Order: sequence, then structure tokens, then C-alpha cells
Amino acid sequence: MNELLEALWYILPAYFANASPVIFKGKTPMDFGKSFVDGKRILGDGKTWRGFFGGLFTGVLIGVIQYQIKPDFYGSFSIALKLAFALSFGALLGDLIGSFVKRRIGMERGYPAVGLDQWGFLVSALVLAYPIKTLTTGQVLFLLLVTPFIHWGANVLAYKLKWKSVPW
Amino acid sequence: MNELLEALWYILPAYFANASPVIFKGKTPMDFGKSFVDGKRILGDGKTWRGFFGGLFTGVLIGVIQYQIKPDFYGSFSIALKLAFALSFGALLGDLIGSFVKRRIGMERGYPAVGLDQWGFLVSALVLAYPIKTLTTGQVLFLLLVTPFIHWGANVLAYKLKWKSVPW
Repeated sequence: MNELLEALWYILPAYFANASPVIFKGKTPMDFGKSFVDGKRILGDGKTWRGFFGGLFTGVLIGVIQYQIKPDFYGSFSIALKLAFALSFGALLGDLIGSFVKRRIGMERGYPAVGLDQWGFLVSALVLAYPIKTLTTGQVLFLLLVTPFIHWGANVLAYKLKWKSVPW
Repeated sequence: MNELLEALWYILPAYFANASPVIFKGKTPMDFGKSFVDGKRILGDGKTWRGFFGGLFTGVLIGVIQYQIKPDFYGSFSIALKLAFALSFGALLGDLIGSFVKRRIGMERGYPAVGLDQWGFLVSALVLAYPIKTLTTGQVLFLLLVTPFIHWGANVLAYKLKWKSVPW
């Protein structure tokens, strides 16, 4: 497999974990409606338990499917599973940290933070997956370059399919 | 030198190139006041020729000083010079692309784009410097993690020193 395609293959669970909460939605917010010391919401209504676990499940499922298709990429099912979990959890954690930062600086739910939305989940996923299986520096830089475009394209698509109310 | 300190040493010209336009300021905007096809400014008054060349000069100067201190890190003066130029030019280019994106989505000059402001110049610098001298994956991830905090700290400091009118 080409080195760049390999990088996209590697990151797939993170992409799916990051995108799927849009479909799962959910009602109970992860911060249970609570506010932070600054009086603003900790995370906001956009981050739900259902979205979180739905995203985690989806990302891990993608990893299981990927292992069936290309087991030699992972070496063992255990590594494939750990990697998919780390990438998915990392992507969701990065998104939560992003929401936390957005609320602290007074940004409304759903308002785009250019850069944070596209890179935050990716950096977090790459960091958490790093101890399990590592990409080369070139592959990491490639993912940093293409992810904003993929993220933007996926959001426009979700908007056109009416899964999202805003195109970001 | 410790691997993580080495990463900070490596990226130093990019940090200085990114920070120095605040001091150089300048009047003539790089877009010469022209608008893009969407009727909005191409880059805005915040990006000046003086800031650009001042940033480039500062970044390269830092590289020259770094070579005097630690020549074995670079191997040759030619590599040190090329690396400092690539990192500085990359940082400034990333910042320009950031301004271009911010203008396109209707953000005012100086308005913070969380993520884009902290990671855009870094990703661009790392990509342009990649063919000259490469960090490890771990070092790149480390820089992605610490740069937002360094960026934020530097901006708060510049604000307190009254070099900037806003703390971001």
C-alpha cells in the first residue's frame, strides 16, 4: 500500500468516530447541563453521552472491519482493536477539549472554530495512538494537510444530506 | 540534547518568524488593499510587507545564531540556513493562508481563529522544512501539543508589554 494511502487507512477510525455523533445525536449532555467556574457551560448541549459512545462504538467497529480486510497492517487483532480504540477515543476526547475551549472563550455551540475543529481531534487521536502504532513524520504531516479538506468536504456533504443544520 | 528540547530548538526560527511581525508592524498591506472575488479583502491590513520580510529576516537570523551555538545539530551552515529559511517562510506562509481563510469566512482582522492561529503556521513550517531536516513522529506530536500553549503565553506576554492591543 502506498505510504499516503496507508496514513488514511490508519486514521479511518478517528474520522468515523469524529463524524458519527452527527448521526447518533442523543439528548443527555455529557456535562449534564452544568456550568464551569466561569458561569458558562462546561461543554454545551452539542456533546452527548450517546454521541460519545456511538462515536466510540463506530470507530472500534471500523477498526474490526479494517482488520478483516488487511490483518497484516496490524499484526494482530489485539493491536487492531487497541489502535481503533485509541484513535476513536482520542478523536472524541480532542473534540471534547475543543468544545471546552470554545465555551471558555465564549463561542456558541455549533459555531465553527477554524483549525480547532479540523486539527484538534486529529492531533488528539494521533497522540493517543502513538504508543500502539506509529506513522512516519511524512505521514503525520500529510494527514495534517489533507484532514481540513476532508473535514470540510464531509461537513458540506452531511449538510446537503440534511444530517446537519449548518455546513461546518 | 533531550529529544523534546531538540524539537523546540528545531522549531525556534518558525516561532520567531511568527511572533516578530508584531514588532515590525509596517503599513503597506501585502494585498495592497485589494479585494478577492467575494468582495472581501484578500488578506487584510494585518499582513504587511514589512511584517513579512521582518519575520523572514528574524527567523533566518535566529537560525544563524543557532548554528553558531550548536553547529553539530545542523551538520553544515548551508543546511542551517536552508532550514531556518524554510521554517520562517513556512510559518509566515501558514499565517497568510490563515488570514486568507479567515477573510473568506468573514472574520475580522485580529479576530482569533482558535486552532488555525496556533497550528496553521506550525504545520506549514514543518511541511516546508521536511525535505531539509526531519523531526521524528514523536517530536512532531510534541510540538503540536505544546505550541498552542506557547503561542497563547507569548501573546499574553506581548499584550502585557503593550506590543499588542489584544491578548491573542
